[in-house]
Amino acid sequence: QIFFITPTKFRAEQKADLTRLGQTLAHIPNLFWIIVEDADEPSEMPTKLLERLKFTSSVHIVARTPPEIRRNESDPNWKFPRGVAQRNAALEYLRTNHRSFKKSVVYFGDDDNVYDWRIFDEMRRIEKVGVWPVGIVGGTIVETPILAPNGTTVINFTSIWKPERPFPIDMAAFAVNLALIVENPTAEFSNHVPRGYQESHFLESLGLKRSDLEPKADFCTKIYVWHTRTENTKLLKRDRQRLQNPESLNLIEKDAIL
Amino acid sequence: QIFFITPTKFRAEQKADLTRLGQTLAHIPNLFWIIVEDADEPSEMPTKLLERLKFTSSVHIVARTPPEIRRNESDPNWKFPRGVAQRNAALEYLRTNHRSFKKSVVYFGDDDNVYDWRIFDEMRRIEKVGVWPVGIVGGTIVETPILAPNGTTVINFTSIWKPERPFPIDMAAFAVNLALIVENPTAEFSNHVPRGYQESHFLESLGLKRSDLEPKADFCTKIYVWHTRTENTKLLKRDRQRLQNPESLNLIEKDAIL
Ligand SMILES: O=c1ccn([C@@H]2O[C@H](COP(=O)(O)OP(=O)(O)O)[C@@H](O)[C@H]2O)c(=O)[nH]1
Ligand SMILES: O=c1ccn([C@@H]2O[C@H](COP(=O)(O)OP(=O)(O)O)[C@@H](O)[C@H]2O)c(=O)[nH]1
Ligand SMILES: [Mn+2]
Ligand SMILES: [Mn+2]
Repeated sequence: QIFFITPTKFRAEQKADLTRLGQTLAHIPNLFWIIVEDADEPSEMPTKLLERLKFTSSVHIVARTPPEIRRNESDPNWKFPRGVAQRNAALEYLRTNHRSFKKSVVYFGDDDNVYDWRIFDEMRRIEKVGVWPVGIVGGTIVETPILAPNGTTVINFTSIWKPERPFPIDMAAFAVNLALIVENPTAEFSNHVPRGYQESHFLESLGLKRSDLEPKADFCTKIYVWHTRTENTKLLKRDRQRLQNPESLNLIEKDAIL
Repeated sequence: QIFFITPTKFRAEQKADLTRLGQTLAHIPNLFWIIVEDADEPSEMPTKLLERLKFTSSVHIVARTPPEIRRNESDPNWKFPRGVAQRNAALEYLRTNHRSFKKSVVYFGDDDNVYDWRIFDEMRRIEKVGVWPVGIVGGTIVETPILAPNGTTVINFTSIWKPERPFPIDMAAFAVNLALIVENPTAEFSNHVPRGYQESHFLESLGLKRSDLEPKADFCTKIYVWHTRTENTKLLKRDRQRLQNPESLNLIEKDAIL
């Protein structure tokens, strides 16, 4: 079983992004989709999407980012981490409801990245933590682990940004065995680590070391995931304001975004 | 048969976008994908993608945008139209190779939009030209045709930008019967019409009037397509320059974008 965890927050493009992602995931065998809405109450849209696409293995939960951490609309380079409360809620959900699932992996899949279907096959044989390259991320064309000549040990990384991090890799670059999450009940993400240290903090809290990394994607030579971003649409002032209060929208506008 | 025409141009996110779109289209019944690369020579990537996803009904052709029309990297609001040469090449391809296909429709599907699978069912019963709403486009949450109380005639449009256009709708808002394209051999897109007039110019060159529009998507009440855009990645200077000369990239970087 692959547990695919998607934090997701309200914005004009959210429904479009989730629809596209859901269609990507719908026919992956043994995939369990965990949608974690950044909201106080679950909204109808993700639930209806899961139903429509016939996800039998799925759940829709909520976890609100605390107000002081929440991203400001006007700040594209918001310095607080994104998705922390949501990913932690998913970890708790797994510990409570799926503790006994053997041979399962957990992957954090944002709503706007691109996933080649082949990435999911790479996740099916992971002992502790699998790792692979990610396309267009960190200001570079590729970030990838570098392997020793034996082809099985990760000895370094190509990341240019903060290469001194214990694990200088993106959230999309790894998947971990569910057993590790159950055995390390306090492992989690944190709003109080420096920028770029989420992945390192989480992997260290699982007791992992660099030597535990298992290279996948044909010995880290293939790109099966890209850290794309969906452009924030420049809405006219009228619609930008009305979006603040979605209940004010007319029926068809609601269908576009809710 | 649905002929789905995708103009596509080289950029860091092109392979990611085409992969995601290909996976969206792969299981749509009776869909024929026409990829038109904005290039002098076809590159390997689209061909390999079509093979990998087992598109038996597909073709990969090229048509280069003339240099004076080609978009400048640094200009996000480039005033020349996009995809004109490519869409015209696809029309020629259809007239030459598929003239006798009865009951087929032609749809223009950009590589970075979001297509709900349900849009394809709406295209299967079109006499002349089907039309439907589009999400997040033209600075607004929705652009949609407005229907008369009878529910079958389009009497107006919600577009705010240049509402005086004969057909104030987006490229993603309509599909036309292939027969019209064959019967009107000079119908095409043009680099010499004012901004926003591509759709109007093309539909008029097919001899269509507003009264020919057939409302789809549950009488234009449902959103099945969104005009999303993939953000232009801010690459570090080093990679931005190397991207200009893709042959200079190492193997894994090539796998990310070529
Ligand atoms: O306050 C926030 C910001 C982001 N996200 C989600 O967290 C993930 C990562 O956010 P984003 O894509 O904005 O990050 P980036 O692309 O900059 O890495 C996405 O699935 C978002 O929908 C969230 O739930 N709450
Ligand atoms: O010089 C160009 C510019 C764009 N395109 C393609 O034409 C379509 C529309 O372009 P774009 O998405 O940039 O337009 P917008 O989102 O601004 O409508 C896309 O599939 C592009 O890949 C192209 O083939 N050549
Ligand atoms: Mn993202
Ligand atoms: Mn586009």
